[in-house]
Amino acid sequence: MACAEDTGVSKVPSMSGATVESPVLDLAGDPVALLQTLIDIESVSGDEQRIADAVETALRCCGHLEVIRDGNVVVARTHLDRAERVVIAGHLDTVPIADNVPHRTRNEGEDLEIWGRGACDMKGGVAVQLVCAATLTQPRRDVTWIFYDNEEVAAELNGLGRIGRERPELLDGGFAVLCEPTNGEIEGGCQGTMRLVCELAGVAAHSARAWMGHNAIHDAGALLQLLADHEPAQVDVDGLTYREGLNAVAISGGIAGNVIPDRCRVEINYRFAPDKSAAEAAAYVRGVLPGFELEVTDVATGARPGLDQPAAAEFLTAVGAGASAKFGWTDVARFAEMGIPAVNFGPGNPSKAHADDEFCPAAEVYRCRDALLAWLR
Amino acid sequence: MACAEDTGVSKVPSMSGATVESPVLDLAGDPVALLQTLIDIESVSGDEQRIADAVETALRCCGHLEVIRDGNVVVARTHLDRAERVVIAGHLDTVPIADNVPHRTRNEGEDLEIWGRGACDMKGGVAVQLVCAATLTQPRRDVTWIFYDNEEVAAELNGLGRIGRERPELLDGGFAVLCEPTNGEIEGGCQGTMRLVCELAGVAAHSARAWMGHNAIHDAGALLQLLADHEPAQVDVDGLTYREGLNAVAISGGIAGNVIPDRCRVEINYRFAPDKSAAEAAAYVRGVLPGFELEVTDVATGARPGLDQPAAAEFLTAVGAGASAKFGWTDVARFAEMGIPAVNFGPGNPSKAHADDEFCPAAEVYRCRDALLAWLR
Repeated sequence: MACAEDTGVSKVPSMSGATVESPVLDLAGDPVALLQTLIDIESVSGDEQRIADAVETALRCCGHLEVIRDGNVVVARTHLDRAERVVIAGHLDTVPIADNVPHRTRNEGEDLEIWGRGACDMKGGVAVQLVCAATLTQPRRDVTWIFYDNEEVAAELNGLGRIGRERPELLDGGFAVLCEPTNGEIEGGCQGTMRLVCELAGVAAHSARAWMGHNAIHDAGALLQLLADHEPAQVDVDGLTYREGLNAVAISGGIAGNVIPDRCRVEINYRFAPDKSAAEAAAYVRGVLPGFELEVTDVATGARPGLDQPAAAEFLTAVGAGASAKFGWTDVARFAEMGIPAVNFGPGNPSKAHADDEFCPAAEVYRCRDALLAWLR
Repeated sequence: MACAEDTGVSKVPSMSGATVESPVLDLAGDPVALLQTLIDIESVSGDEQRIADAVETALRCCGHLEVIRDGNVVVARTHLDRAERVVIAGHLDTVPIADNVPHRTRNEGEDLEIWGRGACDMKGGVAVQLVCAATLTQPRRDVTWIFYDNEEVAAELNGLGRIGRERPELLDGGFAVLCEPTNGEIEGGCQGTMRLVCELAGVAAHSARAWMGHNAIHDAGALLQLLADHEPAQVDVDGLTYREGLNAVAISGGIAGNVIPDRCRVEINYRFAPDKSAAEAAAYVRGVLPGFELEVTDVATGARPGLDQPAAAEFLTAVGAGASAKFGWTDVARFAEMGIPAVNFGPGNPSKAHADDEFCPAAEVYRCRDALLAWLR
């Protein structure tokens, strides 16, 4: 695909064959200006073609990168025969717009903030990736830059997961950085997450003759009391402390206002440290809730922080800060599954992800860019 | 309205002015045959016009009765200047058909059963009422026979309640019998029923950082445990023992699989003995569940059995059986509200009410008819 002239818009053939307009991304300029352009390209999950086109077009102008397009995943990598290869990944999609596109700005200078859908999760990280990919023509380590789709929706659609299944060689590397928002700090690994369901069975009866039945909702009392009394574990893994959580996240029961309920369903979410396997996590929950039949409906194991890797140690030095444990589950676990240690590192406050008042401080964008450049230059 | 000739069908003007066909009811014959005819006149709540027309037409042929039609309520009463007046009431509507109309029969002779929608709840009782109303030309007490609509649906539509509000003089009397199914035994009064809601409030947070929130579903544990541990009271009222019930009948809570729930709603049903007022019932529940905010959303007080009334005592003698407490709430409470003691007495097993395999034993129809005749002849 030819590099776009500087008209502000390039015509690129879409996957469907039609020509769609795709804004030009200026990778040589200011990453904060780039972030603003990226926010203004709407890219709600499932609708990433325009932004993927723009990213692909811009990267193809960088002669030092091999660019591969696969669906709405764009991979760009150096081939410098370095001893090590690192993978730096970010997703292009956002949760739905909440009247927060196009972007707007707040404050100025060092306090400048970029507001809008995806500012925090995670077009700030994508802007840092793109500028570094264009700038690092001779990185110290070979780098694979990955931009993928469908991170905010069902796991089976996740573009990173799809490439891992279909073209795992594209993800090869000794260490990975996922540019999810971490306030520009290094958050190592991620916790696992497991969903379990307890279906309590009773016997229906008219509530005027309750003794003819058995109340399944009442049986949930002991289960919930055990959860309320449970003190979640704090687990050290590779020097980071993971704080677990075991919670009922949904409950439902009841047939009618005059019927003793014959069933009550409790859904439980266990967030567990990355030292546990799925089987160990399930055994732990069953130990906390003895006597209750629990069905595991969903599980994603965590990822160890991998901070004992040389690339990770150098990354810590470059960023100039200590690392902390990542509590939420992120796509770093997809790298962990492939045996690649990974950390989260990106601009933006993770608590603003998906929020209607989502924003990213400009200073964090610069800081993250500078850290990546220092690490890889 | 002219009495129908014995053609099997009479043409009567409907309330809308159109002429609809209404089967002829033979009140001089076999009450079990009459029950079968009544089942075959579909009369799901809201669709009672045909059956009300048939009842009205048949009763107007009885010269000893004053017949009043008000909507789909039919009232027929004697005016013999007796010292006492009793009210004998039954509803004409049924819950929806479940492929069980027209009727069918099972067994023969003493074991004959009539199957079909309304057989038990409560066209068996209506058949007994109609035959007795026609037969008792000179009853010992003045009798008001009431046939009403919309018992099986929202309370505000209930025909007996409507007449009580709009024309209370039609319900005047010293004692009432409601011919709801009781296996042909006397069930005195009824229990009250109260619905309460407890809305537990928490603080939402991502479940990976549960310590940032407060789990409202967990708080329900203590509430449910108190309900599970609670031993319902058994209360003697006018010589009958009422067995109370206090139950969670619905619970709901939860936002998403990865969010600490910030609310949980528990709906509680309290069935209480007829010695308690609504305020006493609410105070009782609050005493069982200290510290929980409970909102009373609905209450219907019960009805004392009134078995100390002379008419009731003679009724017990005529039926030849002891009385037991009625646990479910029934329309006898509407009489109690007007200061009229009332009992339930009718053919059919109440546990078959609303069941798809609803039926009524023929023997109970005869037994109930004979008891009413013996009491009033």
